[in-house]
Amino acid sequence: MQRRFPDVNAETFPEDHPLRRCHGFIFDVDGVLCRGDDPIPGSPEAIDRLRRGGKKVAFISNNSTKSQSSYVEKFARLGIPVDAHDLVLSTYGTAQYVAAQKPQARVYMVGAPGLREELELAGLVLTDDPMEAEYVVVGSAFDGSGRVREDNIDRITGALRALYHAGAKFVATNPDRLFPAQDGVIPGTGAVIGALSYMLDQQPDAIIGKPSPHIVRIALERLSLGPDECAIVGDMDTDMLSGERLGMTRVFVRSGAMTEEKLLTLCAKPDFAFDAVIDMLTFKEA
Amino acid sequence: MQRRFPDVNAETFPEDHPLRRCHGFIFDVDGVLCRGDDPIPGSPEAIDRLRRGGKKVAFISNNSTKSQSSYVEKFARLGIPVDAHDLVLSTYGTAQYVAAQKPQARVYMVGAPGLREELELAGLVLTDDPMEAEYVVVGSAFDGSGRVREDNIDRITGALRALYHAGAKFVATNPDRLFPAQDGVIPGTGAVIGALSYMLDQQPDAIIGKPSPHIVRIALERLSLGPDECAIVGDMDTDMLSGERLGMTRVFVRSGAMTEEKLLTLCAKPDFAFDAVIDMLTFKEA
Repeated sequence: MQRRFPDVNAETFPEDHPLRRCHGFIFDVDGVLCRGDDPIPGSPEAIDRLRRGGKKVAFISNNSTKSQSSYVEKFARLGIPVDAHDLVLSTYGTAQYVAAQKPQARVYMVGAPGLREELELAGLVLTDDPMEAEYVVVGSAFDGSGRVREDNIDRITGALRALYHAGAKFVATNPDRLFPAQDGVIPGTGAVIGALSYMLDQQPDAIIGKPSPHIVRIALERLSLGPDECAIVGDMDTDMLSGERLGMTRVFVRSGAMTEEKLLTLCAKPDFAFDAVIDMLTFKEA
Repeated sequence: MQRRFPDVNAETFPEDHPLRRCHGFIFDVDGVLCRGDDPIPGSPEAIDRLRRGGKKVAFISNNSTKSQSSYVEKFARLGIPVDAHDLVLSTYGTAQYVAAQKPQARVYMVGAPGLREELELAGLVLTDDPMEAEYVVVGSAFDGSGRVREDNIDRITGALRALYHAGAKFVATNPDRLFPAQDGVIPGTGAVIGALSYMLDQQPDAIIGKPSPHIVRIALERLSLGPDECAIVGDMDTDMLSGERLGMTRVFVRSGAMTEEKLLTLCAKPDFAFDAVIDMLTFKEA
């Protein structure tokens, strides 16, 4: 339901626009602000106008392979200036979650160097010995072309042993099943969750990324705002579901991987839907 | 319930022994006749006595990595002479299943060279292009030390693409979750089934190994006997379950990976239980 307003010069929203009451906007990244390294047209302008209009913004992503610092650089390339405080990736959120559960816990990980970086920054102790692990943290074991990462070739088995023999806790960065890529879909962290869950007949003790509310909660804390004061803006059912769980306003954009038809079949009804984030701020004469 | 009989010289069973009415015996291999390459003491003698006593024997295994011809050699090393006709591995059973569904089907496989060999022998056409696959056949992607096989490093993604983009049928050799190995457990085919099922939110169209009755049925055909004339002898719940489904006499041996206590918690009650296969033929004075 896109309402139309006459005030084309408003930095954010006209007086009577229902999104005007939101003080904070939490954006998903891929499919919302960019596709890979390419900005979605208008997204840098949209963020800029929200900020100039006095709105607080934060950025969340289920990305399980990158560190916060590498995302700061990615945002600079997109033309959206951020510092690490504006960002909450599932790598970071997972490291914070485990460190809060048990500071300096011994962690056996499956995943990419960006995950390792966040785990280390959180003061966790990475171990290569499954038998001494207290936590198993899993991200995606696959690279961008869908090959098992060279440094992960024995890590699904290592994680299995840590869980099966050493009784480690099982924490996953995110539940994403698969992603589109150049030559076809590639596995997400879900492939590793599925492999371990099947072998152990046991689900993870925690999954940090959306649709769980973990990373959205961290973003709300960063903004010092309550969920009822904020909107979540995303391109996936998982964005809408995590927002719904927290009681946030939900904005769907059609610029990402999921069609609105598909979204609605997944019982993740948004409050607003736009073609792209810039359209959220575009008001035409009726 | 081990009954005791006075006739210590019987080649097979005394007149009044309930197993005497079984004309055929279908044996699981690992944990029953051998542990890896080592025979379980008495197992070659037990097979020899059953054969000399006029019983028919066949051998089945959920092994997803070896060809039938390599198992003939393995049995020779164990001191149990067999030919390929006496054997039904899940690699062979899977190849026969797919070839019966669609002769010369184009197959994308995940697994070991032994699986490839059986698929080719069954007249199936192996393809490395996921987009042209009609069937995805998955065995274990892991080697004996728990590393992803070098030639499987991109095959979980390939299988995913064949299922997701090309709508291939999804057939797995066996559902085994994990196996004991030197330094701890290693993944079974279940790891690949779990990864693909989670990503696709879709179970395999068929799983050939036990507890499904596919390979047991092939073994019964080989013996030209009905299920009510045969016993299945195994060390796992899956052996007992596949036998139960077909209405066979079920013999559990404690020489393998599963304790009798564990077995009974899995609702897979056997008709008889012995420490090892030779004890099935050992009768002491009461």
